[in-house]
Amino acid sequence: MSRTMKIEMVSTGDEVLYGQITDTNAAWLSDFLFQQGFLVSSRFTVGDDLTQLIHTLQTRSKENDILIVNGGLGPTSDDLTALAAAKANNDELILHQEWVAKMEQYFACRGNNMSPKNLKQAMLPASATLVDNSVGTACGFRMVMNGCHLFFTPGVPFEFQEMVKTQILPEIRQLFPDVDKPLCYRLTTMGRSESDLASEIEQRLSIPANINVGYRSAMPIIELKLTARQSLQAQMNSLWAELASLVSDNLLYEGTIGLARLVSTLLKQQSLQLLVLTDKLAAAVVSQLYDADAPLIKAEIFGDNDPLNAQILTWQMHYPHAIILSLTGFSAEEPIFTLQLITPKQAYHYTLKYTGRIHNNQIQQEIFSAVGLDALRRYLTQQPLVGPNIWLDVIEAGK
Amino acid sequence: MSRTMKIEMVSTGDEVLYGQITDTNAAWLSDFLFQQGFLVSSRFTVGDDLTQLIHTLQTRSKENDILIVNGGLGPTSDDLTALAAAKANNDELILHQEWVAKMEQYFACRGNNMSPKNLKQAMLPASATLVDNSVGTACGFRMVMNGCHLFFTPGVPFEFQEMVKTQILPEIRQLFPDVDKPLCYRLTTMGRSESDLASEIEQRLSIPANINVGYRSAMPIIELKLTARQSLQAQMNSLWAELASLVSDNLLYEGTIGLARLVSTLLKQQSLQLLVLTDKLAAAVVSQLYDADAPLIKAEIFGDNDPLNAQILTWQMHYPHAIILSLTGFSAEEPIFTLQLITPKQAYHYTLKYTGRIHNNQIQQEIFSAVGLDALRRYLTQQPLVGPNIWLDVIEAGK
Repeated sequence: MSRTMKIEMVSTGDEVLYGQITDTNAAWLSDFLFQQGFLVSSRFTVGDDLTQLIHTLQTRSKENDILIVNGGLGPTSDDLTALAAAKANNDELILHQEWVAKMEQYFACRGNNMSPKNLKQAMLPASATLVDNSVGTACGFRMVMNGCHLFFTPGVPFEFQEMVKTQILPEIRQLFPDVDKPLCYRLTTMGRSESDLASEIEQRLSIPANINVGYRSAMPIIELKLTARQSLQAQMNSLWAELASLVSDNLLYEGTIGLARLVSTLLKQQSLQLLVLTDKLAAAVVSQLYDADAPLIKAEIFGDNDPLNAQILTWQMHYPHAIILSLTGFSAEEPIFTLQLITPKQAYHYTLKYTGRIHNNQIQQEIFSAVGLDALRRYLTQQPLVGPNIWLDVIEAGK
Repeated sequence: MSRTMKIEMVSTGDEVLYGQITDTNAAWLSDFLFQQGFLVSSRFTVGDDLTQLIHTLQTRSKENDILIVNGGLGPTSDDLTALAAAKANNDELILHQEWVAKMEQYFACRGNNMSPKNLKQAMLPASATLVDNSVGTACGFRMVMNGCHLFFTPGVPFEFQEMVKTQILPEIRQLFPDVDKPLCYRLTTMGRSESDLASEIEQRLSIPANINVGYRSAMPIIELKLTARQSLQAQMNSLWAELASLVSDNLLYEGTIGLARLVSTLLKQQSLQLLVLTDKLAAAVVSQLYDADAPLIKAEIFGDNDPLNAQILTWQMHYPHAIILSLTGFSAEEPIFTLQLITPKQAYHYTLKYTGRIHNNQIQQEIFSAVGLDALRRYLTQQPLVGPNIWLDVIEAGK
């Protein structure tokens, strides 16, 4: 294809427009289509407003080749997408008996009767072609307007993902068979500033015009990425090797695994189990490890003046083969804290000073959790426990 | 004003388009402007692509009265917004000496020299009017295109918020002095399904045409809201009273305080301190309480087979005036668990069965944390500890 195909996602719903929920469907769709070789080129977000929904469908279909419209197919009165689609296309809403039958079957399988409210979910534009939802009651559908292919999808993430994977992706492939797939390489660093990284990269690497370098800063990490079309893979690979080597002192991981999941994987590979002792300021490390399925035996979130060494000794006796991570001694007045890692062979002890800006509790938890997880990562990959870091000073280090 | 004013936010950046970061600026802006009486009517999200940025500014300015463009004003090569604004308006980018002086002063105050890279942040469209950023190096600016007022703002949340509050809101007020302010009332429930709530509300309440009812479902909670223009305040108030009474058995809170912060406030009002014992499955309750600034003495995240009662006894001895919340006994095979609340006067004991769908670790943590926090809320407001809940069965309850 000579010209670029334009895919836009239309996210609907007040709760998405007003940011009361994170648009996880948007993130998932962009990532999924990217993996399949398609780039989402933009996203338009509107609330539950009929007039505006109609106008959106009419105007955005003129600007794009594909619109993936998400949300507003539920049974309640603020679900307006089917009505908007009908009106935008000068269509009637009609009851699609085919979908009524599907819903009756869906409820019967679960031992329930269908509520009359659900009938609304089978009221779809007369010209719509149904798109099956095998895991819920919100029927997907497709239409063509202004030469653009519109796919209407449910807001429930699981249903949305199933529909995109099994029904919509094959359609898009058929409509646009010849795209040059995009490539994106990512890595995550900690301990340097974005502008510092950018300066060094721009000075030391020569970056071809059609490879893009991107930066994403979210304290405590900076993500770097290279993007280009697949036809540039050879150049991408060699530039990537240079980039990874340039930032190696601060590299946490390549790809998108995440620090907690990386630590979890390393622990499992080395058949190690973990115990965590932490002040409240780093309490998030525990739920992050649990989310990442880490082999975590137990954890204690310390109060002030709790007997740290006694607890460590008790755990060492009971779990002689486990690793104990301890992040304690934070005080409100002084941003100094103690990082200990007690392994079956060795005990490491660091007194550290946080010299960065003080953020809210949530971001501070992210920062100190990351310091602890990184110490584990470094231990498990045979490196010194604390890496070079502009916002962290080593006051004392011992074994 | 007879016609509706249209405010659109234009969010820029690959990381926002691809959902790698949550667009917290979008949520903040919608909420802030709403509080001030202005509704954001839509949001357009584009990546770091010069051609598309130019096209976006040219086309979206035709559709809106105000565009608030966010992001892309930094010093790195993927920050393209100023260049796009210039090209969209057939302008030159010129060095604004006024901003160079501001940046030099900014760095001098911090004992640093300005990096040459930062000069790029003073290269702005010739026709732009600067909008001061008192807390960073990214200069805001404004322009008029196609009769639309465009405000260009930095992506760093703190800088963005300052600029909107101190510079942009006063401008919007001056441009559109006569809006009928929007009203939005919210409450959060737990333990009923969205369609069940919706059915009862639509059957039992008579809802005027120009008041909207909205639902937002995010396991384990459902949020309900009423929105209307301020001129309907009297009707809103009476409908709100009926709605709150209708859902009272499942009501967690009115407004947007959040369960952890509500519990934190109640504990502080009653001068109580808290200790938490939990299995890993509810570990998130600890970081949520800490984020909400709760009077949390300490917490322990249990491993399997840990001596629960011994720990509770020890804590009772050491902290006789504190409240102990314990959420334990989860097993992978059976979704049965034990909720205990030990107060200075009484010990409550519940065996509960979770009958809902099994989600990923993160959502399961949200669910069980909410059950624990709700038990605290109910205790602190003199109610039975476990409320009516479609996905939670009480197997046993005792004191």
